[in-house]
Amino acid sequence: MTTTACPAPEELELHCRQIAERARRAAQELATVPGQWRAAAIRAAAVRIRADVAGILAANALDMEAARAAGVGAANLDRLRLDGARVEALAAGLEAVADQPDPVGEVIEERTRPNGLVVRKVRVPLGVVLFIYESRPNVTADAAAVALGSANAIILRGGTDAARSSRRLVECIHGALADTGVPIAAVQLVDTPDRAAVGRLLGMSDCIDVVIPRGGEELVRRVAAEARMPVLKHFTGNCHVYVDAAADLAMALGIVVNAKCQRMGVCNAAESLVVHRAVADRFLPAVAAALAAHGVEIAGDATVCRLVPAAVPASDADYAREYLGPKISAAVVDSLDDAIAHVNRFGSRHTDAIVTADPAAAERFAAGVDTAVVMVNASTRFNDGGELGLGAEIGISTDKLHARGPCGTRELTTSKYVVTGSGQVRS
Amino acid sequence: MTTTACPAPEELELHCRQIAERARRAAQELATVPGQWRAAAIRAAAVRIRADVAGILAANALDMEAARAAGVGAANLDRLRLDGARVEALAAGLEAVADQPDPVGEVIEERTRPNGLVVRKVRVPLGVVLFIYESRPNVTADAAAVALGSANAIILRGGTDAARSSRRLVECIHGALADTGVPIAAVQLVDTPDRAAVGRLLGMSDCIDVVIPRGGEELVRRVAAEARMPVLKHFTGNCHVYVDAAADLAMALGIVVNAKCQRMGVCNAAESLVVHRAVADRFLPAVAAALAAHGVEIAGDATVCRLVPAAVPASDADYAREYLGPKISAAVVDSLDDAIAHVNRFGSRHTDAIVTADPAAAERFAAGVDTAVVMVNASTRFNDGGELGLGAEIGISTDKLHARGPCGTRELTTSKYVVTGSGQVRS
Repeated sequence: MTTTACPAPEELELHCRQIAERARRAAQELATVPGQWRAAAIRAAAVRIRADVAGILAANALDMEAARAAGVGAANLDRLRLDGARVEALAAGLEAVADQPDPVGEVIEERTRPNGLVVRKVRVPLGVVLFIYESRPNVTADAAAVALGSANAIILRGGTDAARSSRRLVECIHGALADTGVPIAAVQLVDTPDRAAVGRLLGMSDCIDVVIPRGGEELVRRVAAEARMPVLKHFTGNCHVYVDAAADLAMALGIVVNAKCQRMGVCNAAESLVVHRAVADRFLPAVAAALAAHGVEIAGDATVCRLVPAAVPASDADYAREYLGPKISAAVVDSLDDAIAHVNRFGSRHTDAIVTADPAAAERFAAGVDTAVVMVNASTRFNDGGELGLGAEIGISTDKLHARGPCGTRELTTSKYVVTGSGQVRS
Repeated sequence: MTTTACPAPEELELHCRQIAERARRAAQELATVPGQWRAAAIRAAAVRIRADVAGILAANALDMEAARAAGVGAANLDRLRLDGARVEALAAGLEAVADQPDPVGEVIEERTRPNGLVVRKVRVPLGVVLFIYESRPNVTADAAAVALGSANAIILRGGTDAARSSRRLVECIHGALADTGVPIAAVQLVDTPDRAAVGRLLGMSDCIDVVIPRGGEELVRRVAAEARMPVLKHFTGNCHVYVDAAADLAMALGIVVNAKCQRMGVCNAAESLVVHRAVADRFLPAVAAALAAHGVEIAGDATVCRLVPAAVPASDADYAREYLGPKISAAVVDSLDDAIAHVNRFGSRHTDAIVTADPAAAERFAAGVDTAVVMVNASTRFNDGGELGLGAEIGISTDKLHARGPCGTRELTTSKYVVTGSGQVRS
């Protein structure tokens, strides 16, 4: 992308305006395209992507080369990288979205009023979604599929690192849309290198119904500050694992290590460990040793530091931090309620787990913790659209309004009341 | 309220902070109060309000006297005024909310994954709602009931015109909360006369989960601009009635007159009439005469002005306007699709009606018009929480995200995933 010149400001405005208006028109057309056609388009995209694996990998190799030359770090290179297995997983992800029930047209509520009015609340698409995200190419495909599955037009603005990979994937999707008679402009990629394009699009609330930023905290804050349309935020994951007095400690060890170490750079990785005092002296030395074997350092309170000599003292800032790397904060609490208070104080409302054999403790934790996803005796890493059965996700909302947790096709819909009468007037 | 001095800025900040933190704590307590208790508290409030009708009417008389002295207009005086029948309707409204099914704890989705994880999406309260509204006292009671019915704590900031009436109603509600063991701070009234209080509260996103502004366009815009938490907007209603080629014209006449004239100053009153060319020459002169009998003037396009000599020419600004008084815009269209395009161009996504005997036309209009509530062969005036069977409403959302149309108890909830395993980790 570095070879393309940035357009003049008035050209950029025109370019973005055309994209937004094409999306609006596509959304209106999509509203009348049957769900089976949209599912067929998603399946056709999977077929085209499988057939074009060589072309996709070649485009990705160029992205990787440019990223290496630009000094991109190892973790981000891994996120950017595609191989045969990852392309296959991406195609299978599309098919999982196509397999989901069509949310559009679902009757959510229905009642007949005493005056004979029939009140129906039906599920309808949001309209036009602007999706701003960072460099993983598979996110391009997932987002397009989730939008098509919910009859929304989507405007994709991905990280420039993955520009060639994303463009190639979108070409496959466009081929599939053409094959199945679904409007091409349902999926548009904004591939001007001009970073001002995002700012222009964020002002076009007449054409765009919602913006979803997914990426670093700075990106999400910028979008939330500039957007003139509603924002569905995919914010940080300061995820906790609480090990209760009644925990099976072997299970707890497995869950903590998996939640922290299975993939450290992702939002549903554990960043903080909370341990009930009753089991602290048995559990903390063992979990510290297991984490140390993965190179993970602990920042803890006085009790943690006493039980784990290698631990460093933790400040409030440590407890609030999303490490995304080989460090975890740890605290010892005197009760379940203290654990809940700790999570509510420092957590980011993303994913919080309890390990306990006591169903009452699990229920109290699940009710008391203000978070999108509560895991009971399972790793935080399962907070994922695919893992929770949504097919795929466009993001994981940490907002409480509209959608909370992983967002699949249903979360990209709204409702409309259709009230049918026979001439009723209000007296 | 004009006799009370405004507090110093630092006192105001402290006052607002205390309110917000009390609400946050109350919300946490409410989450554990059974739904039957909350319903009992709402019913007890209705009983206390009925018992205190003399006190409420006396407080309202003082509000009315002050409003008259301040030169408040007739329409707003009517909104402010209570009488025995209105107090009874208000108490009955509370009971209608108590009769609604408890939305809290409802399992919205449930599935078991191949790895044995049980995924449940459960309905939970939003937390703390800040409600900013204008002068109708019954709105105070409705909002408190909808919040209690959904286990949310609410901070009420009503118009100062209705301050004494609202305070008296909230005293009744507080008595009922005390009687039934529900936290008093679940319902708080901000009754400092200092207008800066709203600005302070709009900054307290750590304690307040959502703000709902309900009132004039200026109020809603100010809140949307200043709020640091999500906003659920109750915006203007530029409501349309489209009279189709296949309309029963007698039914259409009744609906247009009711939608426009039954109560002109409300958001669900019709503000624009769209007529299919095939019936324009029969319908327009008749409806113009009927509207003229209610003192309503028509601003129309060239065809309207030709068929209705008393009509004045309409500009785009006329078509976009919410009159809230004795004027209506009118346009003649060549097709159903042109009618849909007209509504989507000028409407405010609030309430739009079609009158037609053709089910296919009704279906196409319902799908094509981007609005919260579509009325088929019924007056726009039915867009109301009570009329649509929600018990009562805290407002009518013109947003597409989170909630659309009248907002009752269910619309003040969010969801939480609770995922239960037996030690599952991700591979």
